Amino acid sequence: MTEPAPTPRRGRRPKGQGNPRDDILRAAQKEFGDRGFDRASIRAVARRARVNPALVYHYFESKDDLFTALIGSQVNPARIHSLLTEHAREDAGHVIVRGFATVWDNAGPESVLVIMLRSATTQPTAARLLREVIVDEIVGPGAGRRGGRADRLRLSLVGSQLLGLAIARYILRIEPIAKATPSALAEHLGPAVSVLLADPTGR
Amino acid sequence: MTEPAPTPRRGRRPKGQGNPRDDILRAAQKEFGDRGFDRASIRAVARRARVNPALVYHYFESKDDLFTALIGSQVNPARIHSLLTEHAREDAGHVIVRGFATVWDNAGPESVLVIMLRSATTQPTAARLLREVIVDEIVGPGAGRRGGRADRLRLSLVGSQLLGLAIARYILRIEPIAKATPSALAEHLGPAVSVLLADPTGR
Repeated sequence: MTEPAPTPRRGRRPKGQGNPRDDILRAAQKEFGDRGFDRASIRAVARRARVNPALVYHYFESKDDLFTALIGSQVNPARIHSLLTEHAREDAGHVIVRGFATVWDNAGPESVLVIMLRSATTQPTAARLLREVIVDEIVGPGAGRRGGRADRLRLSLVGSQLLGLAIARYILRIEPIAKATPSALAEHLGPAVSVLLADPTGR
Repeated sequence: MTEPAPTPRRGRRPKGQGNPRDDILRAAQKEFGDRGFDRASIRAVARRARVNPALVYHYFESKDDLFTALIGSQVNPARIHSLLTEHAREDAGHVIVRGFATVWDNAGPESVLVIMLRSATTQPTAARLLREVIVDEIVGPGAGRRGGRADRLRLSLVGSQLLGLAIARYILRIEPIAKATPSALAEHLGPAVSVLLADPTGR
């Protein structure tokens, strides 16, 4: 048992305004952004959202759970899935790269996506989350339809290509990748992603 | 001025044995491996190599310089350059991916390469070094011969593909990438790298 959390008296949120879950997610975004995954705490998120920590635990089981929900609020699995399936194969890579870069650009330089990426190389929990995003959202849906170890390898390599792009563009800021437009990235990297998506056996 | 370093009396290395620079590099490999880039120190490297810190500074200007030299001892720019230029274009991606995975596999799970990768997302110095390795060793030599912003973008994207592969395989251990053989990786990722290497204008 942890000691009971002090309820913030001053500046307590007025009842009946806004959606507490959304307020908590916004506060969590700031907390993770300011302090990184490892040092962020549920207690501090509650303070920022001006709610009792118990309310945070009402919506989210743990810090991991809160972080996963934050990522989920910015990554749309259904959208990823449709990108992977709805487009003609020769265009799929182009659409995926442009869509990926646009989503990340719009999320901003201190988004939870960037935090996840930065934390993933040193924090096992962030690494697990990133692995799950890639395997569950990209490899799973794609390979599930077509099966096979080679399919899973090709799709996870698509994930690794996007991972490399994100780290080069948003963390390391390697030029000219960092300053290129999403369209320019798609023009060059798109065909390479399409090669991986195309099933070599022609199924 | 820092205070004069205490000279280790006991276990001091006998004169005239081995190459001190190599001994220091081996000690640095252990120090960076055990403590990570940020917490490693020249003083501790000297202690591990059983030499006076002044001797470390004789060979290496700074901790950054020592780290760069360590990477240089495991990455061979001439070899990378020849991989990028000597092979027929359609095979180049295959050769590069297989060579890259083989070098990293042989370096082992706690090599300086993995340390650099793990540190690069949080430590500005490690990030700068990784950026320099990619830009100076991959983009520079390739684009230098052919020039142009599009060429630099394509070559830096090759760097980002290898970066994504390394993070997926050695840090996040995403399956089946982590357990795939270098040949299997080359079979699938090679054609995608070749697409980026092939000049779309046919020059």
